[in-house]
Amino acid sequence: MLTAAVRLFNTHGYDATSMFDIAESLGITKSTLYHHVSSKEQLLTMAVDQALGALEEAAREALDSPDPATVRLRRLIRRSVLVLAERLEFVTLMLRVHGNTVAEQHAVDRRRAFDRIVTDLMKQAQAEGGVRADVDAATAARLIFGMVNSLIEWYKPDRGVPDSIADTVSDLAFDGLRTH
Amino acid sequence: MLTAAVRLFNTHGYDATSMFDIAESLGITKSTLYHHVSSKEQLLTMAVDQALGALEEAAREALDSPDPATVRLRRLIRRSVLVLAERLEFVTLMLRVHGNTVAEQHAVDRRRAFDRIVTDLMKQAQAEGGVRADVDAATAARLIFGMVNSLIEWYKPDRGVPDSIADTVSDLAFDGLRTH
Repeated sequence: MLTAAVRLFNTHGYDATSMFDIAESLGITKSTLYHHVSSKEQLLTMAVDQALGALEEAAREALDSPDPATVRLRRLIRRSVLVLAERLEFVTLMLRVHGNTVAEQHAVDRRRAFDRIVTDLMKQAQAEGGVRADVDAATAARLIFGMVNSLIEWYKPDRGVPDSIADTVSDLAFDGLRTH
Repeated sequence: MLTAAVRLFNTHGYDATSMFDIAESLGITKSTLYHHVSSKEQLLTMAVDQALGALEEAAREALDSPDPATVRLRRLIRRSVLVLAERLEFVTLMLRVHGNTVAEQHAVDRRRAFDRIVTDLMKQAQAEGGVRADVDAATAARLIFGMVNSLIEWYKPDRGVPDSIADTVSDLAFDGLRTH
């Protein structure tokens, strides 16, 4: 049920999808659907939980680890790529949500909290000398996660196993395109 | 008129926006709007032209230049950031379009042609030894443009002048986060 709803949200947009559309795609009546979930907002919250729950767990591990910030940042980038590859449709929805309703605004707030953790880690990595200090930490965090989040536009399992994509992303993030 | 339409498409989604909504936001009647444009698809095509026209021009310059591919790739990344910063709403729409109608499919096809030019340039830069060869060219192109395209999510003029953001993006793309 959640997967069907997420697929419709991603294809037609959250606004443009009704509970009737979701029921129809499942071959059930709208009243049967309402027997299971109370609202479209509840489906959105459940879907966003699938994406952000896993990213927040990765962030928590990065915060709790005793390793240098540069190591923890690299690990968080790598883990985030794995979460995206494994929960692509949920992350796609989470990233496209732009906050018109309470449920959407809540998702945007949780995503911003995750972004703040990445920026803080970037600042710590700059302070310990592992990450170049000539780039604004918030801008660097947004650009690197722009690279990570681009997976929702192009990643398919036949484009490489998640582990290998995660290596490519963290290599490019830290060492760039240039030949060394 | 185009700006108003693009704003609505970006806020509510292209599917969810009607010609009536566009007319209403302009304070005119639907028949007055139809006097100026023949369809919602025409508005989409005009908007996508604003974004892709400028990116295609940058790509043409990259193809025509006698400079090494690595230099041309770096310049194309830089120019693309400038186009995004200057035409943010048009590029946002262009990147969000996913191809249900003929006009949308045409936009997706033009965007793919641009992506192929970037991938070819990446391959040439690898062949001449300027870009690391241990990363698949198409994947690297997608990741680097994921970084570029992330501007639609976070760029605001108060986050830095376009020229300085363009430098940051091309520096990170080529040299990565690591301290050198």
